Amino acid sequence: MKPITSKKAVLLLSGGLDSVTVGAMMREAGYSLYALSFDYGQRHRFELEAAQNLGVELGVVEHRIATIDLRAWGGSALTEDIEVPKDREEPGGIPVTYVPARNTLFLSFALAWAEVLGATDIAIGVNAVDYSGYPDCRLDFIEAFENLANLATKIGVEGAQFKIHTPLIHLTKAEIIQQGLRLGLDYGKTHSCYDPTPTGKPCGRCDSCLIRIRAFESLGMTDPVMS
Amino acid sequence: MKPITSKKAVLLLSGGLDSVTVGAMMREAGYSLYALSFDYGQRHRFELEAAQNLGVELGVVEHRIATIDLRAWGGSALTEDIEVPKDREEPGGIPVTYVPARNTLFLSFALAWAEVLGATDIAIGVNAVDYSGYPDCRLDFIEAFENLANLATKIGVEGAQFKIHTPLIHLTKAEIIQQGLRLGLDYGKTHSCYDPTPTGKPCGRCDSCLIRIRAFESLGMTDPVMS
Repeated sequence: MKPITSKKAVLLLSGGLDSVTVGAMMREAGYSLYALSFDYGQRHRFELEAAQNLGVELGVVEHRIATIDLRAWGGSALTEDIEVPKDREEPGGIPVTYVPARNTLFLSFALAWAEVLGATDIAIGVNAVDYSGYPDCRLDFIEAFENLANLATKIGVEGAQFKIHTPLIHLTKAEIIQQGLRLGLDYGKTHSCYDPTPTGKPCGRCDSCLIRIRAFESLGMTDPVMS
Repeated sequence: MKPITSKKAVLLLSGGLDSVTVGAMMREAGYSLYALSFDYGQRHRFELEAAQNLGVELGVVEHRIATIDLRAWGGSALTEDIEVPKDREEPGGIPVTYVPARNTLFLSFALAWAEVLGATDIAIGVNAVDYSGYPDCRLDFIEAFENLANLATKIGVEGAQFKIHTPLIHLTKAEIIQQGLRLGLDYGKTHSCYDPTPTGKPCGRCDSCLIRIRAFESLGMTDPVMS
């Protein structure tokens, strides 16, 4: 039997494939999970429903949904009426789905909650594949945030060292999926599509859909959300 | 006549004495101002009304109020039903009015808006006196955030250098007031009290009231909000 641990971690949990895998890996590492999701006016709101189901699946101690209105700033196809790119073979550059300062905001909220919980561990599902041009998915960004967290907080000033866990950062999408399957995750409950149909069915053609479809294919499987 | 400049700066504007002074100093330096205030469930909601009036006074191009629910995290006398300390001679340590990760959150929102505006200048009214134990009012925190901003954003990755302006950081409260008076500010329109009466009158006894009362006294004046 595994030892019971009281080490708390705040988990940034979207409804997608990556963050739930991070959650399963953190759970395996012995953390009790405090899940944090955001209602940020995203067009793909099925993500939030999926996040709630995945929080239950992970057995999180607590799950909070913070509302922040990123639409107020504009500038992203994820929150505004800008067309989501489809059928791209090789996504490159910073895409129109970029949301300004999104991970900075998400990590800042996580940091605030972590400080209240007395936790110094925060987990986020950034990785090299999902990077696809997002500046705030890179390791130097994450390290800059850890540095900031130690200087920004009461517990940091008192000597605590924050750790932003990014266990996926060097994994391909296929490797991420293998981790999740090993840990018994049901990826049929996830939602990654940037541009779902009105009933929530993934489009199968946006960058986010294509990355996972191809990854499942490379493992000789069909993405369960597409079947 | 001053040259007309199109250099934009996002100004974090509370209803207090410091941030409006920063605004006047940034305006003097030739920036056009985009004011950002927060409704974060603060008990002292008169601050928000004051912020709106001060935005008009500063002639800001645009003023946005972002709603974020810091009460969800708990842990501060500014957002919860914890008693605000009164009549302290020498405030020391990190006070119960500390809001977890507040300036990190505020700067993150400012960063998101700055990126949409194409601006790299953000101004915040942190200073040595107001520090009084808040970790996120220190220069090393500000520098860590600048570093983060350059790594977190599309325009940063493309080579832009963000600057977090903190013109008050080394000024005493009396020196800040002298700057504002020189620039024609009416401090009677500000609101700094942590624990106002139901009609919005400042208590005159919390740390925030006492700091400014003593500063005006040191200049041979009476704080206009106390008269």
